[in-house]
Amino acid sequence: METQVLHLSAVEMIPWRDRARADAIKPQWFEGQVEGRLAKPLGITQFGVNLVTLAPGAYSALRHWHAAEDEFVHVLAGELTLIDDHGEHRLTAGSSAGFPAGVANAHHLVNRSDAPATYLAVGSRRPGAETISYPDDDFGPVRK
Amino acid sequence: METQVLHLSAVEMIPWRDRARADAIKPQWFEGQVEGRLAKPLGITQFGVNLVTLAPGAYSALRHWHAAEDEFVHVLAGELTLIDDHGEHRLTAGSSAGFPAGVANAHHLVNRSDAPATYLAVGSRRPGAETISYPDDDFGPVRK
Repeated sequence: METQVLHLSAVEMIPWRDRARADAIKPQWFEGQVEGRLAKPLGITQFGVNLVTLAPGAYSALRHWHAAEDEFVHVLAGELTLIDDHGEHRLTAGSSAGFPAGVANAHHLVNRSDAPATYLAVGSRRPGAETISYPDDDFGPVRK
Repeated sequence: METQVLHLSAVEMIPWRDRARADAIKPQWFEGQVEGRLAKPLGITQFGVNLVTLAPGAYSALRHWHAAEDEFVHVLAGELTLIDDHGEHRLTAGSSAGFPAGVANAHHLVNRSDAPATYLAVGSRRPGAETISYPDDDFGPVRK
């Protein structure tokens, strides 16, 4: 099998609206979010790799934590604010953050700057073992 | 547990010479390679994340393939040449490549440009299941 190569400029970026459920919670948080998948086009199945751009004001997700899957983010461009149970962290281009499985510290990212911000998100895939909890919202826990 | 955040500028980068075995094969390929680990300082254990810089002329590794662990690379800066069984691919800043587990297509990266190149490498961790094969060299297969 030929090695698959993909430049970010060729990733299919899908607006949140085209991925959203009709009963989505806090839709105004996500209108400025676009996301593309890198792992599958590259033949990778053991972990996911998503490319995400947040317009000013947009959020990554409802605040959440993973029971079984590690998550890692790396900021490629722009500035983001990471919010978790302990407050806020500022992330700039070149910043990475880790969210270990099973740590009940719900987190998300928001773009409070006046320019778009882009990051890579990597998450292990453990279907059947995973539960995602959303302590701020009347949603979930979601089993996967 | 507080979320761990780490900027690339703060990653401990270790020269290849300080990681090498005395009987290393093709040491001249690796003198210009420095590598730092991101996952562990961020509390991530289910996959590895390494930051690697290759000086002009330096290689990522002996050409190899993984029996059980998916591998993903993303170029942050500079230009690299990916060499596999099918020839060469040029990678530039923003390029990603995937190396699915079990695909016997040995690969490595070399910096043939005249400037340093930096990339992130992500690999799943499946100790006990993994074997790495090095078809070009009298080395391995290595079981992990």
